[in-house]
Amino acid sequence: MARIGVVGAGAVGCYYGALLARGGHDVRFLMRRDLEAVRAHGLTVESPLGGFSLADVAAFATPEEIGPCDWVICSLKTPALPEARGLVEPCLGPGTRIVALMNGLGVEDAFAWAGPERVFGAMAFVCINRGAPGVVRHLEYGRVNIGHVLDDPDECERLRALFASGGIDVAVAENLRHARWEKLCWNIPFNGLSVAAGGIGTEAIVKDAWLRATAERAMREVVAVGNADLGAIGSAARLDEPEIVQRMFMLTDTMGDYHTSMAIDYVLARPLEVEMILGNPLRRAGELGIAAPTVAALYALVRAADRRNQGMLPVITPDRV
Amino acid sequence: MARIGVVGAGAVGCYYGALLARGGHDVRFLMRRDLEAVRAHGLTVESPLGGFSLADVAAFATPEEIGPCDWVICSLKTPALPEARGLVEPCLGPGTRIVALMNGLGVEDAFAWAGPERVFGAMAFVCINRGAPGVVRHLEYGRVNIGHVLDDPDECERLRALFASGGIDVAVAENLRHARWEKLCWNIPFNGLSVAAGGIGTEAIVKDAWLRATAERAMREVVAVGNADLGAIGSAARLDEPEIVQRMFMLTDTMGDYHTSMAIDYVLARPLEVEMILGNPLRRAGELGIAAPTVAALYALVRAADRRNQGMLPVITPDRV
Repeated sequence: MARIGVVGAGAVGCYYGALLARGGHDVRFLMRRDLEAVRAHGLTVESPLGGFSLADVAAFATPEEIGPCDWVICSLKTPALPEARGLVEPCLGPGTRIVALMNGLGVEDAFAWAGPERVFGAMAFVCINRGAPGVVRHLEYGRVNIGHVLDDPDECERLRALFASGGIDVAVAENLRHARWEKLCWNIPFNGLSVAAGGIGTEAIVKDAWLRATAERAMREVVAVGNADLGAIGSAARLDEPEIVQRMFMLTDTMGDYHTSMAIDYVLARPLEVEMILGNPLRRAGELGIAAPTVAALYALVRAADRRNQGMLPVITPDRV
Repeated sequence: MARIGVVGAGAVGCYYGALLARGGHDVRFLMRRDLEAVRAHGLTVESPLGGFSLADVAAFATPEEIGPCDWVICSLKTPALPEARGLVEPCLGPGTRIVALMNGLGVEDAFAWAGPERVFGAMAFVCINRGAPGVVRHLEYGRVNIGHVLDDPDECERLRALFASGGIDVAVAENLRHARWEKLCWNIPFNGLSVAAGGIGTEAIVKDAWLRATAERAMREVVAVGNADLGAIGSAARLDEPEIVQRMFMLTDTMGDYHTSMAIDYVLARPLEVEMILGNPLRRAGELGIAAPTVAALYALVRAADRRNQGMLPVITPDRV
């Protein structure tokens, strides 16, 4: 039994934390919105694969109350990454490992202060939303791909065993950077378009010939940038373009009308994960001299959408056309 | 003195029609929204260059009331082009000429039924909005570039003289197709981004590094497609990329926060001129095998914005994330 701190208990943190708690671990959630509800009524996972409820959940308002853990799973929204150190550090003991369970390129950099030997990256391939406070709605999929910042196989095995003990479908990535790019092959086109097209679901993207073509073009650009990046950092791993395009679209075609986390954030006017998902990969493309015009357009437009929501980009109103 | 029918009396039709009427011509406006106001109070042009009012304006509800004219200026919104023949044909006599005063590629095709020798294309480089009914707000610029479908210089001179007689700054384009592409070099990036970014003004585009870069990338793509098209149709005219990019951005940088007609249409949930301005040029790029990924993304997203406004693309609502 491990002691696990979950910092950033949104849909993803609550879901995987709940699975680990059901698996017998001492899981301690740092919560904001759901704190009172979870203390009063526990945590419920609704899922077509079989839901469950945890009556007794260790939910805390501060990381100091959580204290040192064996593992800290950090699943903050990436715009909150500047707060990560303050939230994670109080949960560290001498041997604590940190799992950056987030999307995007460069999220592990936010934990460089802890030393690379402690830090894992993890990506959830899961369709999941928050329901009412204390409720997580799991819709489909659930695999977690994990990797270690130093690609240490023994460390990877430890984390794999931990996730597996919670019944989580877990796979060790060939290497972390490769896994990050592979995930971006989905996130950049689909998160990007779901916001740039005004807050729409994945079905609306794949069923519209022009949006679908734009998604595919963006995906191919991400593959090219990812492969250039992997080559530049001396990795032998590569992204197989036709295989990835075929798999990602097959996945999305059978996903139903999934609402991406970025579309949900957009519709609820929350800060968007635009820099980690779109900005950092695009800047990397620039450094590598790889053309990524579709990604660049999506970045500019999602950034504009974010700034619009934050009141930083004035829009024309019907009374002032 | 010529008899001139103005079909599609929006901002552009009213403005140039008013200048021609002031110049002594018998201008007959086909009006919808402004009909009663103009019949009661005439037509007012507000302009920093000097406004004016016309007390007696010939405004009609049907083209049959207008009857045969020497010239018909058609300045419909392009989504209304399928109605153009029904509105223009009643205004034709044996020698009537038709001026398609609209943006986009292929607008003259809507008048193919009249015979190419009758048809002109014209593009207004003007910042202009509709005010209250019967009022047009001219903000800046005003040049009209004209061309004839058969590039007939004698015909061009007749139209040039007509516009000049209204005090209009008019220039005969080297050739019409070239002029269409040159106008698209502005319209595609700026109309496109003003809508894709959620209904914003030109200043917000040129002052944001990422939107500006996207606009520039789109503009360079339009130049490439335009030059390929001009070559394919056997025209010697070409678009000079550095000159156009420099001129268009200088123009836009000094324009103030102009609200593009497409952004206004978007904000007011009117049908967008997406096919003539973005769709047709993009399809031409495809035929010519020229890559235009930024234009393609803008087309997909502006089309999505249009469909959203028309209720044809479901958006995620805050209560149904």
